[in-house]
Amino acid sequence: MPSHSPYLTPLSRTPGPRSRVLVLGAGNFGSCLADHLADSEHDVFMWSREGDLVEHFNKHHRNLRYLKDHEFPKRIQAIGPELPSSTFIKGIDVVLFAIPTEGVRVTLDKLRPSLDANNPPLLIFVNKGIETSTNQLTLEIIADTCGKDIARVAAFLSGPSFAKEIVKRQPTMVSIASLSDEHAEKATAVFHQPWFRCYTGNDPIGVELAGALKNVYAIATGIADGLGYENNTRASLITRGLAEMTRVGTAYGANPLTFLSLAGVGDLFLTCSSSSSRNYTVGHRLGKGETLEEIIRTLGSVAEGVTTAKGLHAIVAELGVEAPIATSVYDVLYGAGKNVDTAVRELMEMPPSKELDLPEQAGTPLRRLMKKLGLPVDRRLSA
Amino acid sequence: MPSHSPYLTPLSRTPGPRSRVLVLGAGNFGSCLADHLADSEHDVFMWSREGDLVEHFNKHHRNLRYLKDHEFPKRIQAIGPELPSSTFIKGIDVVLFAIPTEGVRVTLDKLRPSLDANNPPLLIFVNKGIETSTNQLTLEIIADTCGKDIARVAAFLSGPSFAKEIVKRQPTMVSIASLSDEHAEKATAVFHQPWFRCYTGNDPIGVELAGALKNVYAIATGIADGLGYENNTRASLITRGLAEMTRVGTAYGANPLTFLSLAGVGDLFLTCSSSSSRNYTVGHRLGKGETLEEIIRTLGSVAEGVTTAKGLHAIVAELGVEAPIATSVYDVLYGAGKNVDTAVRELMEMPPSKELDLPEQAGTPLRRLMKKLGLPVDRRLSA
Repeated sequence: MPSHSPYLTPLSRTPGPRSRVLVLGAGNFGSCLADHLADSEHDVFMWSREGDLVEHFNKHHRNLRYLKDHEFPKRIQAIGPELPSSTFIKGIDVVLFAIPTEGVRVTLDKLRPSLDANNPPLLIFVNKGIETSTNQLTLEIIADTCGKDIARVAAFLSGPSFAKEIVKRQPTMVSIASLSDEHAEKATAVFHQPWFRCYTGNDPIGVELAGALKNVYAIATGIADGLGYENNTRASLITRGLAEMTRVGTAYGANPLTFLSLAGVGDLFLTCSSSSSRNYTVGHRLGKGETLEEIIRTLGSVAEGVTTAKGLHAIVAELGVEAPIATSVYDVLYGAGKNVDTAVRELMEMPPSKELDLPEQAGTPLRRLMKKLGLPVDRRLSA
Repeated sequence: MPSHSPYLTPLSRTPGPRSRVLVLGAGNFGSCLADHLADSEHDVFMWSREGDLVEHFNKHHRNLRYLKDHEFPKRIQAIGPELPSSTFIKGIDVVLFAIPTEGVRVTLDKLRPSLDANNPPLLIFVNKGIETSTNQLTLEIIADTCGKDIARVAAFLSGPSFAKEIVKRQPTMVSIASLSDEHAEKATAVFHQPWFRCYTGNDPIGVELAGALKNVYAIATGIADGLGYENNTRASLITRGLAEMTRVGTAYGANPLTFLSLAGVGDLFLTCSSSSSRNYTVGHRLGKGETLEEIIRTLGSVAEGVTTAKGLHAIVAELGVEAPIATSVYDVLYGAGKNVDTAVRELMEMPPSKELDLPEQAGTPLRRLMKKLGLPVDRRLSA
């Protein structure tokens, strides 16, 4: 039984069909969602490629590496380290992808032969990021590996959601998007509870871009905080970051209003205003004068925004839009010796401009993606 | 010389035409803007209706009641308690209204005869709120008192801007909106500096609504924090509040994208994430179990959101849109005995829904206002 606020105790679980859910990935986010799904009375199988984690989890109902203080419901069964068999997958209703974006292509390649074309499970993706070798979003990776029919019904879940709060049943709200309204609603039926509210939308491109790009703007916000700037600056920078994300997203082919969503501004706000965010922390330490090398060495691994800044730099160049904040972050991380105070000064000395300056046309990435999906390009252009 | 971050010392002031500016109001926001304008080398006259404040300010360059630790530039001259004469006003280039919304109508009525129709000063408004007796925005009050020609060129400045940070030259960014692009740019030329960046837009209705409505959502966020909810909930509630503001605003006739601006999401963030905000504080104390009467008694005066919740309730009813968060806040403040945990439970138990559900048509308030302005109704409907 999860611990939760006294006010929430009497809330009753929303009744719904019980599903057999396969969660791929036993990281921080994968395991908290497995917890939520089991708490919602689904039958949950959580796959990890780490044999010791699987064994420990099934014996002690605890995750060896994440959320270590939390005891997971007994109805979660850990499986692995091999991917489950075709026979197993045919009995699954929902596959939740909670693995890093870099692992999605190879996992889908392996899984593809097990997916029954006539009765495929509902695929829900929670990874965020841009594939480094191709600068593609997950929707495009799905189309490449599994074809348009599967990509057009894939669902994406994203929003402001720290794992350690989800396992305490702290009220959390997320966006669920799919090109298919019906499948967004199906995914909502799996996840929705009074303490985990789901809101549907039909713009997975916007949801994915927001989830990836926000980490770059969290670095920028961390830098400003590290330099000693206060509340006005943080709120201004988050907002200008949001305007920039919206401009890049619209040029790509997203609906600008998607950036007003839980996956957009909600997740951006959480990531930019908490020292629990790794990307914010990288920025904060850069602002305090540390070098990227020092930070990466002591942080143990690279924060996603450090990688995404590169992908975003390439996308911005391809789209030909203005993205001064992302460009500054890229220059600080990878530019030849540009320091944070020069970057900040240059941003502040830019001439005044119109506040929301959105491109009228979507660019090449959307055209390429819509062709793969067999959909008309103008489908994504309406605001 | 204001104290500021070491990184900002070398930034140079943007040169521009020197204006004679009359600031009406010597409150927290009026006096920090007077400070900024004097620091930008304008000639500034700050009017207060309080004789002792005027006298003290001119002798000591300090404000008796606000920002008491700050020494103001000597080039600000306080005037009052009488409103300045017609002759004085004829020599003024810019009038900045930094008085409460409730005082705007009577002040404009008095000022009107002094405004030269052929060469009026630039009027810039920074008050936020809905006039209680009429539920009107300031733009409509201007049209009623001064006629459409003056209302169509009025400018509105709004954004995330704590006064105590502005007087320290902490980097701050604001939206400046006017139905006239030319006048938004003129107002920008008066205010813009590297440490006070201005972004122009042409939707004063959206800017005004966002500025007023955000205080109601700050109360809601304070309540959730007071109840002990954490980061996921705060980010989710701010985002759902933003979606609701956008829905109400669009129904009224604003451009939904205005809610992505500094005056929209920027100011909402700041107000909802700081205990320096009075509206947030009211909510926080309600969440902790205090009654509104106790809070108002010890707070000394009513926070704006408490009043705006009433006006918003009436507007929402007139527009016929869904606004469950605003309705909950209204019920907690004014409803017969509804307590905060019932209100929260009811919100959380609502069925899942589409994330952004915007009305297609603008409602009666816009039609009425556009008629007064002599503009076609559909002018404000484009996104």
